[in-house]
Amino acid sequence: MGIITLLTDFGLKDPYVGIMKGVILGLNRAVSIVDLTHRIKPGDINGAACVLQESFSFFPPSTIHVAVVDPGVGTDRRPILVKSRNHFFVGPDNGLFWPIIQSDPQVLMVHLTNQNYFLPRISRTFHGRDIFAPVAGHLSLGIDPLAMGERFTNPIRLPHETPTLKGDTLLGRAVRVDYFGNVITNIHREELARFLGNRQMLIRVGKETIEGVVNTYADGPKGKLLALFGSTDHLEIAVNSGRADRLLNIDGTQSLPVVAVDRVAP
Amino acid sequence: MGIITLLTDFGLKDPYVGIMKGVILGLNRAVSIVDLTHRIKPGDINGAACVLQESFSFFPPSTIHVAVVDPGVGTDRRPILVKSRNHFFVGPDNGLFWPIIQSDPQVLMVHLTNQNYFLPRISRTFHGRDIFAPVAGHLSLGIDPLAMGERFTNPIRLPHETPTLKGDTLLGRAVRVDYFGNVITNIHREELARFLGNRQMLIRVGKETIEGVVNTYADGPKGKLLALFGSTDHLEIAVNSGRADRLLNIDGTQSLPVVAVDRVAP
Amino acid sequence: MGIITLLTDFGLKDPYVGIMKGVILGLNRAVSIVDLTHRIKPGDINGAACVLQESFSFFPPSTIHVAVVDPGVGTDRRPILVKSRNHFFVGPDNGLFWPIIQSDPQVLMVHLTNQNYFLPRISRTFHGRDIFAPVAGHLSLGIDPLAMGERFTNPIRLPHETPTLKGDTLLGRAVRVDYFGNVITNIHREELARFLGNRQMLIRVGKETIEGVVNTYADGPKGKLLALFGSTDHLEIAVNSGRADRLLNIDGTQSLPVVAVDRVAP
Repeated sequence: MGIITLLTDFGLKDPYVGIMKGVILGLNRAVSIVDLTHRIKPGDINGAACVLQESFSFFPPSTIHVAVVDPGVGTDRRPILVKSRNHFFVGPDNGLFWPIIQSDPQVLMVHLTNQNYFLPRISRTFHGRDIFAPVAGHLSLGIDPLAMGERFTNPIRLPHETPTLKGDTLLGRAVRVDYFGNVITNIHREELARFLGNRQMLIRVGKETIEGVVNTYADGPKGKLLALFGSTDHLEIAVNSGRADRLLNIDGTQSLPVVAVDRVAP
Repeated sequence: MGIITLLTDFGLKDPYVGIMKGVILGLNRAVSIVDLTHRIKPGDINGAACVLQESFSFFPPSTIHVAVVDPGVGTDRRPILVKSRNHFFVGPDNGLFWPIIQSDPQVLMVHLTNQNYFLPRISRTFHGRDIFAPVAGHLSLGIDPLAMGERFTNPIRLPHETPTLKGDTLLGRAVRVDYFGNVITNIHREELARFLGNRQMLIRVGKETIEGVVNTYADGPKGKLLALFGSTDHLEIAVNSGRADRLLNIDGTQSLPVVAVDRVAP
Repeated sequence: MGIITLLTDFGLKDPYVGIMKGVILGLNRAVSIVDLTHRIKPGDINGAACVLQESFSFFPPSTIHVAVVDPGVGTDRRPILVKSRNHFFVGPDNGLFWPIIQSDPQVLMVHLTNQNYFLPRISRTFHGRDIFAPVAGHLSLGIDPLAMGERFTNPIRLPHETPTLKGDTLLGRAVRVDYFGNVITNIHREELARFLGNRQMLIRVGKETIEGVVNTYADGPKGKLLALFGSTDHLEIAVNSGRADRLLNIDGTQSLPVVAVDRVAP
């Protein structure tokens, strides 16, 4: 009675996600499969890593999270399995799981090499179907991760994952724009509190400046930029009754902007 | 073995819907979760109420319908549970459930105040995850609705819900445009029959006029406006092999047009 | 404990797919329902047939595949059930299942006429809900297909389903464009090998020419057209780090281009 989540950049136009579910259900009919999202921007490993990190802990222990944002499919990048905090993660070794790995000293990482747990024939273009779905299906049946390959300790890291300190400025980044146009950063509420102490904050994004944070999207004047802590306690730039991405001229194709927080006298 | 449906304006780009499913499955592994749609126009309470009303009765008794179109999240609007016709509805008190409430004299309405059935920590921005998903999960386990809060009797009403009569004209509204561009109104087949008696009808939308109704989308000349009763027996404006929304210049951002039916001599 | 897949051109904006799931779960609470895709271009029977054929065999035996791309809904086209290779297919008789039918000499085809397995009231516009979903639900409970209607042997055929030979040229077609912009053809790896023998190939699409095939999307110069065998072993036109549909000026509204393969001296 396991749970498997799926996170990909496959979109919803093609049957690729449905086919992965067919492979999983062929191995374990009793599993529940949940889509996290399939609309990661193609190849956006940072965005996918961010979505996975904000989502996984709302699932019960032993959930298996399959993530396939895999621009290197068919090359020699490793297929891997990660066990952390009693959750399982399955996908390519390209940084996708780095935020989970680097925050857990007890993490277990396995290079998936045992082809007995793959489909009989492996294509060069669709490892979600041929490797990651069948590994997840077997895992949900209770197969030991260490039977599926060898431990390793040198995973690929993700750049720009945490903010950096430069004098009285904390330099973070926008990591994704949500459906409502809210711009979500990698600056966590607790890190920001430690940085600020008893001082006030001034937030800078592009040419815009925001003073302090509010509590809800409905606070502050309509149509103006505001900052708040979103549902994962990360700093978020939004607009009351509007879209922050439009006001900041973020169009989805360019790289996401730096978000700087200055600490100033109270 | 319950069923929970989800209806939101969250879109499919973000993991928000998946996270709600994680919270539900963490409480009840045996539940089936069905997406009604997550592409309600952000904040469109009327559109969501219409979708819910046309859908719920096709699910078996005891289904729990969670609807989160909630522009007032984080303000003091009430989180509520409605029981009607042996179905359950969970979401914000903002008119979403008004069509269901006003048509059922036996309706039970509960203001959700018992935090034991919420997540331990309630954000200001994501009550779908923190309140509505866990309430639905508990409800599917058989918890009594009256253990979850207090009855109330003054729900928020929805404007424009039913057509009005003005002399020999029945004034309805378009309530939503479907994926095929068909424009669905709030005028029901039976109400229209009572209004017309033995007279003919002339339908007016914007500058266009349609005489009478046909049986299927394939009736009438290609590319011309036609009217028929759709799959929920509401009057619908369509185009044979085309899109009525384009022909009527409805672009999805403006408010939907009035649809007037005149009764005329046979 | 059956599996039912759904394939439609209904999109994800409306509750139509969710309603079909409600009807199915009302008949059989233990079934798992998997979406193949609901973003088939409205009325694109060829595209849907292609998706179905590439997907079904990844599901376990006895899976029921419901496909509703049905521009003739409400007219006299037949509702049918097809049994092939221990899979079931339910939908309109309009060519959708032709690739499956024509490749299986043992195929069983049933014209669905027994209204006991439909919803009590049949609309003119939504047979997915009123006929195909309840038939699939009953089938998942073990009802005999032959109890649901009469055998027939003259199914509607699909044009352009397989490539044709013209001298030293194999004339195929693009059958769909995937989310990544890859253009998938109806030319299978084995058919191509038989055609070529020990000769080389030259692929022509529009004004473009491609010499030979590569192994992965990452092969060859960035931004240039390449050809490879995709995850279903059909010839596919792609661009390393780009979109083949854009480079070939395929815009999704026009009909898909001819793909010609010439055999030339090695």
